[in-house]
Amino acid sequence: MKKALLILLALSFSFSFSQTDKDVLKTIYKQSLTNGKSYDWLNHLSNQIGSRLSGSLGAERAVAYTKEELEKLGLDKVWLQPVMVPKWVRGSREYAYIESEPGKTTNVNICALGGSVATPALGLKAKVIEVKNFEELEALGPEKVEGKIVFYNRPMQADLIHTFEAYGGCVNQRYNGALEATKYGAVGVIVRSMNLRMDDLPHTGSMTYDNLPVDRRIPSAAISTNDAELLSTMLKLNSDIQFYFKQSCKQLKDVQSYNVVGEITGSEFPNEYMIIGGHLDSWDLGDGSHDDGAGVVQSMDVLRLLKESGITPKRSIRVVLFMNEENGLRGGKKYAAEAKRKGENHVFALESDSGGFTPRGFSFDCNDAAFNQVISWQPLFKPYLIHYFEKGGSGADVGPLKTDSNVLAGLRPDSQRYFDHHHASNDTFDAVNRRELELGAATMTALVYLFDKYGVNPISNKETIKN
Amino acid sequence: MKKALLILLALSFSFSFSQTDKDVLKTIYKQSLTNGKSYDWLNHLSNQIGSRLSGSLGAERAVAYTKEELEKLGLDKVWLQPVMVPKWVRGSREYAYIESEPGKTTNVNICALGGSVATPALGLKAKVIEVKNFEELEALGPEKVEGKIVFYNRPMQADLIHTFEAYGGCVNQRYNGALEATKYGAVGVIVRSMNLRMDDLPHTGSMTYDNLPVDRRIPSAAISTNDAELLSTMLKLNSDIQFYFKQSCKQLKDVQSYNVVGEITGSEFPNEYMIIGGHLDSWDLGDGSHDDGAGVVQSMDVLRLLKESGITPKRSIRVVLFMNEENGLRGGKKYAAEAKRKGENHVFALESDSGGFTPRGFSFDCNDAAFNQVISWQPLFKPYLIHYFEKGGSGADVGPLKTDSNVLAGLRPDSQRYFDHHHASNDTFDAVNRRELELGAATMTALVYLFDKYGVNPISNKETIKN
Repeated sequence: MKKALLILLALSFSFSFSQTDKDVLKTIYKQSLTNGKSYDWLNHLSNQIGSRLSGSLGAERAVAYTKEELEKLGLDKVWLQPVMVPKWVRGSREYAYIESEPGKTTNVNICALGGSVATPALGLKAKVIEVKNFEELEALGPEKVEGKIVFYNRPMQADLIHTFEAYGGCVNQRYNGALEATKYGAVGVIVRSMNLRMDDLPHTGSMTYDNLPVDRRIPSAAISTNDAELLSTMLKLNSDIQFYFKQSCKQLKDVQSYNVVGEITGSEFPNEYMIIGGHLDSWDLGDGSHDDGAGVVQSMDVLRLLKESGITPKRSIRVVLFMNEENGLRGGKKYAAEAKRKGENHVFALESDSGGFTPRGFSFDCNDAAFNQVISWQPLFKPYLIHYFEKGGSGADVGPLKTDSNVLAGLRPDSQRYFDHHHASNDTFDAVNRRELELGAATMTALVYLFDKYGVNPISNKETIKN
Repeated sequence: MKKALLILLALSFSFSFSQTDKDVLKTIYKQSLTNGKSYDWLNHLSNQIGSRLSGSLGAERAVAYTKEELEKLGLDKVWLQPVMVPKWVRGSREYAYIESEPGKTTNVNICALGGSVATPALGLKAKVIEVKNFEELEALGPEKVEGKIVFYNRPMQADLIHTFEAYGGCVNQRYNGALEATKYGAVGVIVRSMNLRMDDLPHTGSMTYDNLPVDRRIPSAAISTNDAELLSTMLKLNSDIQFYFKQSCKQLKDVQSYNVVGEITGSEFPNEYMIIGGHLDSWDLGDGSHDDGAGVVQSMDVLRLLKESGITPKRSIRVVLFMNEENGLRGGKKYAAEAKRKGENHVFALESDSGGFTPRGFSFDCNDAAFNQVISWQPLFKPYLIHYFEKGGSGADVGPLKTDSNVLAGLRPDSQRYFDHHHASNDTFDAVNRRELELGAATMTALVYLFDKYGVNPISNKETIKN
């Protein structure tokens, strides 16, 4: 009954909402749906610039473009925050086949994992050992693994409603697969793409060698879900088949890049910072429209929508476009380190990095007082079908800003289609729906408006009481 | 506070849920997401059969196919219910252009509205008068309208979150546009497509001449949103421009068709019927995957999912695949008339006809007791992100079954993308996401399970009390 009473209290509180908050939210959503900029920005980012892997020309152009666009908004400050980023390049297109007997081959779709080393120039051919997880690999031991390609084939769990949970349950195959396989003498790694759908597109993503000496690093690639099934079936028929793949990717020296930052300086509490962000870099397949072009343009639009809706924030609101989320998180770490160095009090940070789909709500990393305050705002969001307010994670880039008292949040859009596109060549502009994207921008703006107005910890916060 | 207390009561009730209901819902969702049939059925319906306009070969084949598939499910009965349906054919592809001066033309994308008459064989060319609504038309009067083509150009309202509301606010232009325009001597009608997106695809849909004598009927067509903007702009520059269009559609005699019905006979209350349905017919553009192939296959899967989940319904559960929702509603009317004639007690009817997108919940047409019962089930649906439970409409095909005591419901999926595809050539299989479709089927099954278990009016219903 305690929960029920809490809800009762929350509801009584909700009845005291001034009409103003309702009106402001209405204005914000209307602005976004009838006069939004996010979709046009994304069109440019995706179709004029394209993919934005850290250290690439695309990333460089995206820095220049978004800075220029932020400057047009009449913010109080716009600047670049320098950050050194890793530069990995894919090289020529990967090539792979299954050889069921000498001369009898079937081509399959693969792509190198981000951070992987190349195969030898003429490619790598070896027998394959299929496993579903590291326990199976360990049980097989060097005897069965040595000299072979390890094929990780644990699918994403389809019955999980939150697809990010299904991703979380699989991604260690991709990230740590090579590191584990080298322990038993494997010569290469093939990983089933993190995709809930059966199709022909390989999905890339980051992997690590940790501190493994360079000469012990083995090439790793993702294989499409259809071809993972094919390979598995062929292995069942004949465990002696061979797998060939060739990739020429490499890790170059770190290069200079930037986070892009824009700020509306707070009218009452300029030294309290609220940031909204997404990551500017993307993988090199597709154009990174969902991951994370969507989050970038939505975050930019939050500041524009505040201005267009006639809101003068009391706190300093920053949009931060992080560089290098995908393969290093250097931008997020750098931003947090600089904030700490300067003693900037970041009371709130919101990240959008789950695709530009219809928003359902937010996940919050915060204390109970702040969370209860959010719950009291639920009725304001109901007309916009925003219903998901749960404690949980926020986002990779804002995570390093965590303190005991601040609020970190992550936008939670509908996740059903996300992994159809994630890190694959079909993460493209046409897969983003304008209204879904704009609803996300509006929903983020509404949350920022409320936290700015009521403060992060209202009970201990004098300024809130006068509202 | 009354509302809060009600919610408090609902919550207390919710705490007494047996683990069983939770488990059953979990099983249903898991079955649908890992072993669903809806997507495969839709693949056949869309890609092997295609569009299914009433009276067409496609509609006939869809009747045969779905009957055959239902027969494979081991239901207690499967049958066809005869119904005579109108047959309208589009004829050859429509052709249209704007003539800004003699010999200077710009082609535009149009399609005849369903039910429209043809233009003269050589087409129709006239000046154009643009209006936003019937009031403007009336104000112009015969003087300004006679001999012209009326161009209805009121866009869907983008700031409405529920896109069906935006549709409701526009569709009279399409449905009654010709009838109104003939009052003032117009010779033809062009209607802006009911589409929230700017693109080149015209969207068809039904229109009426009511009892207008045949010789006074004027041809009506929809124009794509991009071309509606073009036409409007050109009219602003020069109101004397002419519009030409040619279409050869016609209404033929009614033909024999069928509703397809399948039944699991109830184990305890076989004379209480609960139906789940969608409509088998579609428009002739595209393949009707969202409208309403999705609803058809989801409804079929409800019965299969009940069986696969080990549920023995107490009441008779019927799937009804209605014919002719789009341009006549003959199937829905026929089913209700037959139910009445036979004295069949239909205690519940659920329709899915809003696209195969991620389900958000249901709209209910029922009394307060039944609705409060639904509200008490909300916590059961929360893990599946089903949050929308509101009073409102149900669906066109189940509407005629309304009584004072029964429950009519409509599945409410996310509606943001629906009108990108509605009645247009891009309402195709590739626009449907497997998981989103399957979540809808599971959500429908869960509601049917709960209503079958607890009854429609639990307080006045003895059988429920023993549960």
